[in-house]
Parts: sequence; structure tokens; C-alpha cells
Amino acid sequence: MIQGFGTGASMAGRLKEIAVDASAPIRTHMRLADLETPALLLDAAKMRANIARMNAAMARHGVALRPHLKTGKSVEAARAMIEGWPGGVTVSTLKEADQFFAAGFRDILYAVGIAPNKLPHVAALTRRGADLSLILDSVAAAEAVAAFARAEGLTLPVLIEIDSDRHRAGVAPDDVGLLTAIASRLADGAELRGVMTHGGGSYDAPGADRIAAHAELERSGTVRAAEALRAAGFACPVVSVGSTPTALFARDLTGVTEVRTGVYVFQDLVMAGLGVCAVDDIAISVAASVIGHQPERGWLITDAGWMALSRDRGTQTHAIDQGYGLVSGHDDLIVISANQEHGIVADRHGRPLDLTRFPIGTLLRILPNHACATAAQHDRYHVLDGGEDALQVWPRFGGW
Amino acid sequence: MIQGFGTGASMAGRLKEIAVDASAPIRTHMRLADLETPALLLDAAKMRANIARMNAAMARHGVALRPHLKTGKSVEAARAMIEGWPGGVTVSTLKEADQFFAAGFRDILYAVGIAPNKLPHVAALTRRGADLSLILDSVAAAEAVAAFARAEGLTLPVLIEIDSDRHRAGVAPDDVGLLTAIASRLADGAELRGVMTHGGGSYDAPGADRIAAHAELERSGTVRAAEALRAAGFACPVVSVGSTPTALFARDLTGVTEVRTGVYVFQDLVMAGLGVCAVDDIAISVAASVIGHQPERGWLITDAGWMALSRDRGTQTHAIDQGYGLVSGHDDLIVISANQEHGIVADRHGRPLDLTRFPIGTLLRILPNHACATAAQHDRYHVLDGGEDALQVWPRFGGW
Repeated sequence: MIQGFGTGASMAGRLKEIAVDASAPIRTHMRLADLETPALLLDAAKMRANIARMNAAMARHGVALRPHLKTGKSVEAARAMIEGWPGGVTVSTLKEADQFFAAGFRDILYAVGIAPNKLPHVAALTRRGADLSLILDSVAAAEAVAAFARAEGLTLPVLIEIDSDRHRAGVAPDDVGLLTAIASRLADGAELRGVMTHGGGSYDAPGADRIAAHAELERSGTVRAAEALRAAGFACPVVSVGSTPTALFARDLTGVTEVRTGVYVFQDLVMAGLGVCAVDDIAISVAASVIGHQPERGWLITDAGWMALSRDRGTQTHAIDQGYGLVSGHDDLIVISANQEHGIVADRHGRPLDLTRFPIGTLLRILPNHACATAAQHDRYHVLDGGEDALQVWPRFGGW
Repeated sequence: MIQGFGTGASMAGRLKEIAVDASAPIRTHMRLADLETPALLLDAAKMRANIARMNAAMARHGVALRPHLKTGKSVEAARAMIEGWPGGVTVSTLKEADQFFAAGFRDILYAVGIAPNKLPHVAALTRRGADLSLILDSVAAAEAVAAFARAEGLTLPVLIEIDSDRHRAGVAPDDVGLLTAIASRLADGAELRGVMTHGGGSYDAPGADRIAAHAELERSGTVRAAEALRAAGFACPVVSVGSTPTALFARDLTGVTEVRTGVYVFQDLVMAGLGVCAVDDIAISVAASVIGHQPERGWLITDAGWMALSRDRGTQTHAIDQGYGLVSGHDDLIVISANQEHGIVADRHGRPLDLTRFPIGTLLRILPNHACATAAQHDRYHVLDGGEDALQVWPRFGGW
């Protein structure tokens, strides 16, 4: 995936704590100014500060963190996130499970409802030694998993997904009949490991109080469901909740055994718009070059279009709409329009822009609306850690 | 990139005409029903019909086609598009130029305004034998290219970008002063090969008449600019225009020497919404599995979220809003919401849906809003050609 760079010299001493395997990152000695644009940049110091903040929040609650690795899809970023925790992680694809298992992660929760066509892949990972747990929210899926596990002679761990805020999938927390029906079907072949929810509704709830209310929906819904299952005679050791907003703003996690959260590692403009972080906390950006001017319209044309930024418009409904991204260091310059390999940058209020300040070739850094979506458009991070004259490359992967 | 498949046996005879290099596609003998979802499907027969339709339109005008390869990013698809034409192609990244040059394409137009940091890459491709032409729309960029070319002892071919419909970049067609200033700066080091435009405004102009009007803006603007340059003493052999809508609906291409167009190879819901194609012409889709039901809300939960579909909402402003994609064969079922690995499918009018018709594991095919964006989320095509029991894999690439 990484072309045009030598694999090479040893890591800088300061990176040793976040990249255990010194052979993985590629030190390029390339300068930021020489990078071919568009390219994805990662500020490692900001990433470490974001990780430290989440770790501190979990320490206050005394609850384990099971980081979600879908944002970074990077072994180096994952190692930084897992430091100090027992080692359980969350993934959104079996490709992530493959990659992170190969990198030494064993306790992996695949947090998307299982489809039957993925069970052979699950079995292969399990046989290779992964402790891979699945989620589901229906009797039909429970029967499919249990029947497959029996036929294969495996015991597959499963969590029941709970719909704590009615935003997507899961069993209603008080639907005891459905919860126990699923648990019964799992008994012969699978292992009911617990319940889980994702309070994704918190992404529509700006401000500490509204986010905290969503966190309490997550907590109370999963704890009630777990208690109902236990009352019906099912062991339900794990109560798993999480989203980046609720993880940081939860006021009480009584009864919760672990928190899953992912985007905190990089943060983004959606999180900033919700009040979850500051714009200055955002650890990734897309390096773009000015390739043209349209003086009459006050436009800078850049070479970072939606292929580099993603089509995510997650701030569209926020108080501050950041277009397709905000130009770092310029509070009112946003990407107002994006084609495949073109981004149009202009003043957010339509005010005239002095284009002579941005000659052809000027390097801009575009902050992402949604870190998961923007990072997904790239196959590597150019890591700034120790200055702009010694970039490292961290590979990242995509696909299924 | 392609893991878990053997490279292998020879191609089916019927594919020989579109895949010249028998070693490139990978025949898997996998059945559609066994595919792990989400996955990108390509109906090769529909692709060939789309290509034949565009070729016929070009033949009517007697104008050369220079296919844009940014939609497919696939050597096999490119070979199908180029058949019968002299061999010139268009790309949107230098990575595409690298990949297609390696596959035997030599005459390549890089159709995004050149940034100075890409010039060493351009020089490397040129020295290896590529006839790689660049575009630009400013004196500053012309000076940068000419100075670089002189310093490197190269002659770099350049087209001046014309802004025929004020939608993005380019010189106004009648700004003779700027056109000749750019041409003068290019003279010492570069080669002025011609003028080009992309009538992207046609994407906002539904219906044959409005699209034809945009095609005439493309034609008349570039021809006027070329004539002004010729009158000023500059050779300007190439007059290059194009977009899929304008290419198919142009009524007159007098003075145009070549047409560039890309998305026609697959077509998509945006094109269907503009009246450029029928929904049934769309050659790619995303295979998705039903992973859950929310009966109260009439929702099917699938495992194709925005990671598989893209975040493109290109039909949002159309008469028919297709959400994040339309379920093939179900005119009123659309993806109403998409998270990273979840898509929520529901009736477009909010009518109740009989979820029992779609049990867990049901395979749906989601048609894309924007083929370029959806395909970009995948690293391979699963090609249906000769039935659902003998899929082929065509690799595709991304990045820069």
C-alpha cells in the first residue's frame, strides 16, 4: 500500500511509547512542504492528549475502556489507545478483526449485527485463537448463530444489542419476552456474554446536559436489560455502552462494565460542534494545495475534493455549518463545495477574500467533519511528531 | 489488495473482448449467495451496453472519445472503455496515471489543475514515456510549470482550462488577455496543446434540452477560446469538452476535437434523476444483508452503511430523493439513513413495510447515487457475467 517510500530507519525515541513494534511505522524524512497533496496528516501529540483525556474519564468512573478501532484502522493508533487497558477492543468489520488479531489483539467485539454469510469468517478467526464476540437483536439471528456454532463444534460468545435511544438497532430495554427468547435460543451453541448499546442519538444532542441524559439512557437501558436476563436465570456478565460524547459526559456508570468509544482518538468538527472537544483538539487534517483562484467569486480552488475529505456533511444541522471542512487556522474559511478532486474554499459568510494571501501552491490543512469518514478515504497517515521536517507514515487499511 | 482468493484459471470466453490481459481478472467460482457483505457488484453486460451507447453518440458526431477513468479505477473497465478509440484517456489523480501507464496506456490527460508539489511526479512519468498532459488556469501556474520544465529539460504539454459554465475552475472563455498571457508564459518550457472544459453545471440541469444547452456552453466557450488563441498566433490543436450528460445530449460538436466522460461506464441514480439513463442501466450495486428489523418503525437494518455506499446524497435536490441509495427491484425502498456499517432501509413514503418478506440474511442490492463515490469505497468489483454462480474479481485502486 505504501509506495514510493523506503522502509527504513528506526523510530524517534519519543514515539516508542505509542508504537510498540518499531518495524511498523515508516520514517520517511519527508518534509510536509514536499508532500504530494492531498494527504492525510496526523498530529500525534494531539492524538495522545485525546487518548489521555478519555483514559482519565474512564479512571474517574472505574470502568474499563474497550476502544473502538474503526476510526483509525491503524495498528499504531490502536496500540496507543489500548495502553493501560486489559486489551479488549471493538471493531466494525471482520477485516478489522483480521488485521488487529494479526497484530496481537485477541479479545475483539464485532459491534455490528451479525449476518449469516459472515459466520464462516467468524469461525475461522475463532479457530485461530481470537476471542471474537458477536452482537444480534433477534430470535432469527440467535437461532442462526447457535445452529452454526453447534454444526461447527464451536461456542461463539454473543451480546444482545439493546436499543437505548431508539436511533437504530437493538431490542427495547424492557422487552423481557424478546430478551429471554433470544437468550434461550443462544443457550445451545452460543454463550450469552452480556448486553450492549451504542447511544448514537447523542450525536444529535449538543451540550453537556443533553449528552449526559443520553449517557443515562445507555446506562439505565442496558442495566435494566441485564437485570431482567439475570432474573430469568441467564448469566449476563458484560454490560457494554458507549459513544464518544456519552463516554466523556456520563455522570454515573453504575452497573456498566465497559465503555466502547472510538472517534475520541482524533476528534472532529462534529464533536466540536456538540461541545465534546475544541476545534484545536482535532488530530487529523487533510493537506491540500491551492491550485486556482476565482477572484470574482472569492473562491480558492484546491486539490482536496470529496475523495480526500469524504462526502460527510455532519455539521450541516449544527449551529455552525462547516461545509466539507474547516481550514485550520482560518476560522471563517470553509470548503463550501466539493467535487471528486476539487474543493472550493471560501469565506463562510460569503465575504470577499484576499486571494493574494493564498498563492498557487499554498498548503492548507482541512479539518474533517467526521474523522472516521475522512480517514477512510486514505491508505496512510503522515504523522507529524517532532516537527514538519520528519514525517512518519503509518499505514491504515479499509474494506471488509 | 485481493485477499482470500486464488489467482487462477482462464477467463470465460465471453469476457475476452473487454479484458485483453487474461491474467488480470480473478475468476473465483464464488456464488453471489456466498459472498460476504457488503460487497461491490458489477453487471458486465450493463457496463458494455453503457459503453456501446456512448460510443454510438461519439460516432454520430465523428468526435474522438477520451474516456475518464476516475469512475472505474480498474484496468479491466478501462480496457472496455477504450476499445475502438486511439487510446487517449483522462485521469483525476497521478496515481491513476501511474496505474494506467503501467497497464499500457500512454496518452493521459491529468484533468485537475496542477499543483507545484506534483511536478516531480509528472516529470518521472514523462521520463518513463508517458505523454502526460496537464491543465491550469492561471499565469502563476503557467510560470511554475514552464520554469520546472526548463529546469528539468522537459517539454510538458498543457491545456488551458476554460470555465464554460461558471461552476468551478477555469479562465472565462472571452478573457483573451488572460488566455494569451498564460499561453505566452507556457511558450518557454511547456507546450500549449489546447483548451479544455468540464460542463459540470449539467449535473444541475435535468432534461435533454437543459443538458443540450450546457453542451453548447462547453462547445462554444472552448471553441471561442481556441480561436482567440489561434488568432494571437498560438497553435491550439486540441479542443476538449465533456461530462456524461453533455456528451450524450450534445446536438452539435463543431470545432470540438475530443470528448471526456467517465460515469457513463456504470451510470447511477444521479444520472437517472437527470434523465440521462434509466435506473435499469445502472451497472454497479452494493450487496447488503438484512441484519435486523425494527417492526414499529418499519425499518430493515442492513450491513451496508456509508462505508460501503459513500456519504453521497446527490439526489437530495432531485424530484426523486433516493436517500443513500435505492434497493434494486423495489421502487419505493431506499436507504433512509446510513451510519458507518449500518444502513436503514425503509419505504420512501414512510408506509408500513412487511418485514417478513425480508428475513435476516436476505441479500439486497443497493444502487448508488453516485457511481464514482460508491465504487471508491471498495477495492474490488465482484463481476457478474454469465450468472450468479461464477463471480469474477476485478481489482480497483484508490488513493493518490
